[in-house]
Amino acid sequence: MSVLSAAKKVFYLPIMIGEWDMATIVETVAAMRVLVAEARQAGKSIGFVPTMGALHAGHLALMQQAKKNCDIVVVSIFVNPTQFGPNEDFTAYPRTWAEDLAVCRSAGVDAVFHPPARELYPDGWGTWVEVTGVTDKLCGRSRPTHFRGVATVVTKLFNIVQPDQAFFGQKDAQQVIVLRKMVRDLNMVPEIVMVPIVRDEDGLAKSSRNAYLSSEQRQAALVLSQGLAKAREMAAAGEQEPAAIREAVLSHIQSAPQANVDYVELYSFPDLAEIAVLNQDVLLAVAVRFGATRLIDNIILTPSRT
Amino acid sequence: MSVLSAAKKVFYLPIMIGEWDMATIVETVAAMRVLVAEARQAGKSIGFVPTMGALHAGHLALMQQAKKNCDIVVVSIFVNPTQFGPNEDFTAYPRTWAEDLAVCRSAGVDAVFHPPARELYPDGWGTWVEVTGVTDKLCGRSRPTHFRGVATVVTKLFNIVQPDQAFFGQKDAQQVIVLRKMVRDLNMVPEIVMVPIVRDEDGLAKSSRNAYLSSEQRQAALVLSQGLAKAREMAAAGEQEPAAIREAVLSHIQSAPQANVDYVELYSFPDLAEIAVLNQDVLLAVAVRFGATRLIDNIILTPSRT
Repeated sequence: MSVLSAAKKVFYLPIMIGEWDMATIVETVAAMRVLVAEARQAGKSIGFVPTMGALHAGHLALMQQAKKNCDIVVVSIFVNPTQFGPNEDFTAYPRTWAEDLAVCRSAGVDAVFHPPARELYPDGWGTWVEVTGVTDKLCGRSRPTHFRGVATVVTKLFNIVQPDQAFFGQKDAQQVIVLRKMVRDLNMVPEIVMVPIVRDEDGLAKSSRNAYLSSEQRQAALVLSQGLAKAREMAAAGEQEPAAIREAVLSHIQSAPQANVDYVELYSFPDLAEIAVLNQDVLLAVAVRFGATRLIDNIILTPSRT
Repeated sequence: MSVLSAAKKVFYLPIMIGEWDMATIVETVAAMRVLVAEARQAGKSIGFVPTMGALHAGHLALMQQAKKNCDIVVVSIFVNPTQFGPNEDFTAYPRTWAEDLAVCRSAGVDAVFHPPARELYPDGWGTWVEVTGVTDKLCGRSRPTHFRGVATVVTKLFNIVQPDQAFFGQKDAQQVIVLRKMVRDLNMVPEIVMVPIVRDEDGLAKSSRNAYLSSEQRQAALVLSQGLAKAREMAAAGEQEPAAIREAVLSHIQSAPQANVDYVELYSFPDLAEIAVLNQDVLLAVAVRFGATRLIDNIILTPSRT
């Protein structure tokens, strides 16, 4: 294949599928293309888990699902500057490379793509992927350029890794919705697989940003999962009014004095359309600040079948 | 491969590479994916010529180059609505399907992708590829959404056809520049190959829009190629001043009374940066209206090596 032979001319890597070290570290696009071409030539399917590192049990669940579904698993660890707003936590975002690599190795990942920022955003770079419609609400309202950065970097990573399936957590439900729309609208090949939220025993959704929380904030943050559990009970008991559920969740979250609510909203899933009554799958999503730390959580309410 | 087997479940096509009819007609994305997967499995390289139909000798040159470079040649014929502005000639654009198919067959094309608009832009569609920087000048100034539509549809077609190489005419030099930037910025796999302009014997660049011209307008339109030829002579004779060349070309074009100049401009090639002196490759590009018909032409001036 021309791509393979061209890449080999420049970056000869004597690597055969099945003989990779566990979690081969790849830092350049050209080297990644060689691995992908080798996998393709060997008829192997590729599962891809894009991450920004600071890996936790939620990411591990993505890797485990990828291992189940695909022959080869590639994880990317790249803190993507273009999805952070100018006043967001790009520089402060936790970077835990050694631990991340150990997590990937323990999960049996085949390759970790870990490029420097210059490799993906060289001088003169400037092409964006813009998903419209589902990006202007929920997190898109308070983070207006966030999903443009996500869609753009995922497009780039898909073109580099060429996966059959890519794995994302339900924790970022709107991200899954945006990326599924992007894949459909641009006729991309990879399937977006959504993996359930992983929680601590007390209910807090796993997040790299939990590391920012003081112990008081962490305790207060339990109102998110508690509020969502309350909503699930209300829906199961037959509550049909989105406004009633929203009010109950909001007032529970606001019972934590440190909680600064960004949004508590219900939309149809996966279209993110306004809803008047709970007669279809509904995404109940919340975003709340505790000090400088913004946490999100969500639940998908299915209409009771009774 | 999962993509192939999934596609075959829905659209079984008993087609083997090497046994295709000349210019198999493909109208759905799913069927195109089957052909592409078969070609890939057989180890064949794919050359792709995206067109809007109304094929002429310029398109034929693209197909011939594709035949030379690649094992399999796919031509798309799709008048892309998203690259026309609201007051442009989308509905009037010439559609000559039977003749186009004959041209593809005469050129030995393997497959013609000819989807209905709904296949590429279904209800709820809305994801755009935006190339910045090189899109805000030349044709991008008078057609502000044009290159967004081009970049978006080419992204979609690349994801569907998955070519090794894609062939575009130098006639649309800015389009080539924009698409090369898009491929680089988004890490796409296909190589953009630029094929020289094909001209009528009297110098008029081949264009589907030439069909709109009255015989008087067609005669007047020769000032474009004549102006560019004059510029080439001036550069070969040592003229270094972009402004001097621009003035000479502009005044020659304006000697045709029907000519309504959109632009006559010189920029560095391929960066489209401002230039003070002709000491590098320079794109001299012109756009001129004759009545309602807008024609473009260009030349790449290389610094004299003397």
